[in-house]
Amino acid sequence: MTFRSYMDIALDEARAAAARGEVPVGAVIVTPSGAIAARAGNRTRELSDPTAHAEILAIRAACAALGSERLPGHDLYVTLEPCAMCASAIAATRIARLYYGAADPKSGGVAMGARVFSHPQCHHVPEIYDGIAATEAETLLKTFFRDRRSGSE
Amino acid sequence: MTFRSYMDIALDEARAAAARGEVPVGAVIVTPSGAIAARAGNRTRELSDPTAHAEILAIRAACAALGSERLPGHDLYVTLEPCAMCASAIAATRIARLYYGAADPKSGGVAMGARVFSHPQCHHVPEIYDGIAATEAETLLKTFFRDRRSGSE
Repeated sequence: MTFRSYMDIALDEARAAAARGEVPVGAVIVTPSGAIAARAGNRTRELSDPTAHAEILAIRAACAALGSERLPGHDLYVTLEPCAMCASAIAATRIARLYYGAADPKSGGVAMGARVFSHPQCHHVPEIYDGIAATEAETLLKTFFRDRRSGSE
Repeated sequence: MTFRSYMDIALDEARAAAARGEVPVGAVIVTPSGAIAARAGNRTRELSDPTAHAEILAIRAACAALGSERLPGHDLYVTLEPCAMCASAIAATRIARLYYGAADPKSGGVAMGARVFSHPQCHHVPEIYDGIAATEAETLLKTFFRDRRSGSE
């Protein structure tokens, strides 16, 4: 599978999140051998859990399956730039490569804002590839918030 | 109860974490009326969950009990300066006041490093009170890591 096909699965998770009334963000974690370790979409509303972002749910599932607090050699794909919470969790988990889609000027914590990976208090910095399928991820988000504002949800 | 007695409960949670072989950090969430909404210690090892910091576990428990993603008017007490992940979760949860004990030069994300509350991408900034029972919190951490290095754990 190519990096684009993993991001397509993350986009599927984002679409499924939107269908549940959640902000459409999806994430996939891939093992060093290319298998899918976990996939998740945002569930903060459903779970009444402000930490239930797609990245956090995927990390928790992959770590639980592996019985480890860390996922060295694993890649994480997410449709939106991680916030500071998720970026810090990605560092703690020792994710090797982070692929993300749309930039998040409002809440991002990687390329802007807290820039979590840019401080000595961050103990691991993944390779970062941004802008993967960014237009599709952005369109999902814009459509979701437009529909919500117009009350069509 | 005074802020010091809430921090004493957080210190109890930190000691319980140490007894489980976890890094000794404890947290307490207090409702606007002064009741304890949740209390937790670090459980990253036990749960194989890198997000299972004391603050995150307390936030998740308090939110689940309230059926809400947010805890406005609630206070959070934690024995150690929150990392970027926990600081960002505290902002997302709209915690009103953050009381913490020891500074964390190694991994802190409040007064140093990512300084999560200092960017426009952070949508809520709690009142922050640091240094509460800092010596006791630091002593717990130093003893834990000294014992671990000497193999007496």
